[in-house]
Amino acid sequence: MAIHFEENVFTAPTGFRAVGLAVGIKESGAKDLALIVSDRDTSAAGVFTTNRVQAAPVHLNRTHLQSGTARAIIVNSGNANACTGKPGDQDAARTAQELANALSLSAEDVLVNSTGVIGVPLPMDVLLKGAQEAVRGLGEGGWGDAAEAIMTTDTRPKTASATFVVEEATITVSGMAKGAGMIAPNMATMLGFIVTDADLDPAELQSQLSRSVQTSFNCITVDGDMSTNDTVLALANGASGSSLSGDDLDAFAAALDCVCTSLARQIARDGEGATKLITIEVTGAPDADSARTVGLSVANSNLVKTAVFGRDPNWGRILCAAGYAGVDFDADRTTVSIVGIPIYASGGGVPFDHEAAVEALGADEITIDIDLGAGDAVATLYTCDLTYDYVRINAEYTT
Amino acid sequence: MAIHFEENVFTAPTGFRAVGLAVGIKESGAKDLALIVSDRDTSAAGVFTTNRVQAAPVHLNRTHLQSGTARAIIVNSGNANACTGKPGDQDAARTAQELANALSLSAEDVLVNSTGVIGVPLPMDVLLKGAQEAVRGLGEGGWGDAAEAIMTTDTRPKTASATFVVEEATITVSGMAKGAGMIAPNMATMLGFIVTDADLDPAELQSQLSRSVQTSFNCITVDGDMSTNDTVLALANGASGSSLSGDDLDAFAAALDCVCTSLARQIARDGEGATKLITIEVTGAPDADSARTVGLSVANSNLVKTAVFGRDPNWGRILCAAGYAGVDFDADRTTVSIVGIPIYASGGGVPFDHEAAVEALGADEITIDIDLGAGDAVATLYTCDLTYDYVRINAEYTT
Repeated sequence: MAIHFEENVFTAPTGFRAVGLAVGIKESGAKDLALIVSDRDTSAAGVFTTNRVQAAPVHLNRTHLQSGTARAIIVNSGNANACTGKPGDQDAARTAQELANALSLSAEDVLVNSTGVIGVPLPMDVLLKGAQEAVRGLGEGGWGDAAEAIMTTDTRPKTASATFVVEEATITVSGMAKGAGMIAPNMATMLGFIVTDADLDPAELQSQLSRSVQTSFNCITVDGDMSTNDTVLALANGASGSSLSGDDLDAFAAALDCVCTSLARQIARDGEGATKLITIEVTGAPDADSARTVGLSVANSNLVKTAVFGRDPNWGRILCAAGYAGVDFDADRTTVSIVGIPIYASGGGVPFDHEAAVEALGADEITIDIDLGAGDAVATLYTCDLTYDYVRINAEYTT
Repeated sequence: MAIHFEENVFTAPTGFRAVGLAVGIKESGAKDLALIVSDRDTSAAGVFTTNRVQAAPVHLNRTHLQSGTARAIIVNSGNANACTGKPGDQDAARTAQELANALSLSAEDVLVNSTGVIGVPLPMDVLLKGAQEAVRGLGEGGWGDAAEAIMTTDTRPKTASATFVVEEATITVSGMAKGAGMIAPNMATMLGFIVTDADLDPAELQSQLSRSVQTSFNCITVDGDMSTNDTVLALANGASGSSLSGDDLDAFAAALDCVCTSLARQIARDGEGATKLITIEVTGAPDADSARTVGLSVANSNLVKTAVFGRDPNWGRILCAAGYAGVDFDADRTTVSIVGIPIYASGGGVPFDHEAAVEALGADEITIDIDLGAGDAVATLYTCDLTYDYVRINAEYTT
């Protein structure tokens, strides 16, 4: 199977339109409303935050996804509609209903997403007026604007697309996402939206999405803080015509993984104040969960992240963070490399060219490889360095 | 029962001597070797790091404590003897043996502790020569020097003492501790040493220490990174003469809690780069574990810690961090206050005098109160703010 993949590109799947607008929710005047609509019914799937405190749109989407179908995704940035109580739930429901009316759909066909300040009521007049405008502005070329409109403190839009061919039909899987940090003053949310013209039933799409999220969006961390709004949605409208099974389904899975992993990496790289993307490869783990747990522990370590910022090939901190992950392994059988240079083995540091390592740590992308020598399972985690700018962005007095 | 408690004081319990010296392990020439000796047998107890990677002295102390007795505690700073393989274990054993010879004890009577750089062999010649010197220098007034000699990047020594009277005998419980951060370049360790002239059997002492550590040293976090060397040891030599039971045992427990909690707070306050001590009081939890889990989740949140640094009364971040702790609670029944000012209730923000809150957040000690409205259990956690200096200290290129 041949998959064509591109980062920072959004190839429109057949039968979808989009738009991104500035409607006045953000005080800055930046784009703040995105709308994605399929011209026919879709299979719909979602993965949501496991935070005990969940925002109103998460409540609504969980309910609306019970049917396994949807037609439209609306997203506002600038306000998370989180911790807004019953009025917040009513606002999310009203957004779905009024957008459904404008699109001649039922409210259950609409998925609603919000990201931005926590605890402030949505400016409903502005939002609903904007939604009407968005319906009028829908087009096949609106994807770039939509990817911009979902941003909060992201420094750049995040998109990725993959295509493959089945029986002469080209199938497209495209996605957009926004930032992983819980951002000042109270902003919340990692959001990801995947649209495809593949033909999949809802259960298959949900299973594919859950699997792919586990090795992509669930493998990134900026600061270990999981927001009240984190959401990944997928819509598959079948407009490509080919029903997928066997090898073709494998191709879809691979395409979806390319898109989700790319978006996840883009989010990690654009973490608050980040200067470097850190990729942590854990191998030799007793099982996949253990591999991911060890990797996340290292990825969440402030000491590892500051060491990378400081270009310090510090295996002590890496090994220590692996050690408190709660996974059973033997430090004497573990090896650690950074930027490809072995720095720890056989229970102690190994000699290496320190100057060369410091030089290599100047790169934008840093890899840390940890082999636990305890099995065959692997995991790849993504994070960023911890910098002065992280503190500045999150400590600046802004509420 | 009347307990007399003092912070930043070390009242020597009867029958113990101590010393702190600069013997040349630290390049800076600062004090780096401490020795504490009891003139008679003690009941001995310990609590150790749960990190999967444990330093050589932790291995040794676990073994030596199996007898429930000890006579001496030796501590070097400047080198953690961690990730040093079998030679490291041999170095720890040799330290115990040579010190035992000098003190006419058996090696099993000696507990060995190291803190500092990971992965570098101990300079044994320097250390053993220093140990001989320390034996000669032992005295009743050596406690202040000892508390200094166990420091690494701590900015000040940490001591606390409590006394109470039983049948005309004064019983003293005193302790010293050092820093909680895992400190640049590779330094490891929270260490705490409690000495008392109370008369307790080893099982009772271990039970008291384990209980007290759970609500003190186990309730602090600087950056969530748990070191390879974390150790708290307690020696009770019975020199006060009174065997404790009933109310007197309760008095001992209270005295021990005062000392351990004070030392834990001193460590949190002296966290790397910290400008503020943050005390998080969780109430209304379904059980004590849940209370502690929610509190630790908030205490470990980089976003909460930067918000406090930035004097931002940000309930969104506090609630969010509570939400991902994995504990079941109802956000609508939860209340949050900061510096005594209610900021969140009934599922949303409550109006408060913002200027007054920002002013109050300028203090050195900040309290965050979280009532989950889900039970009667409580927990108190201690942490510090996350500042530019944390990044500077940990990112500075130093290996």
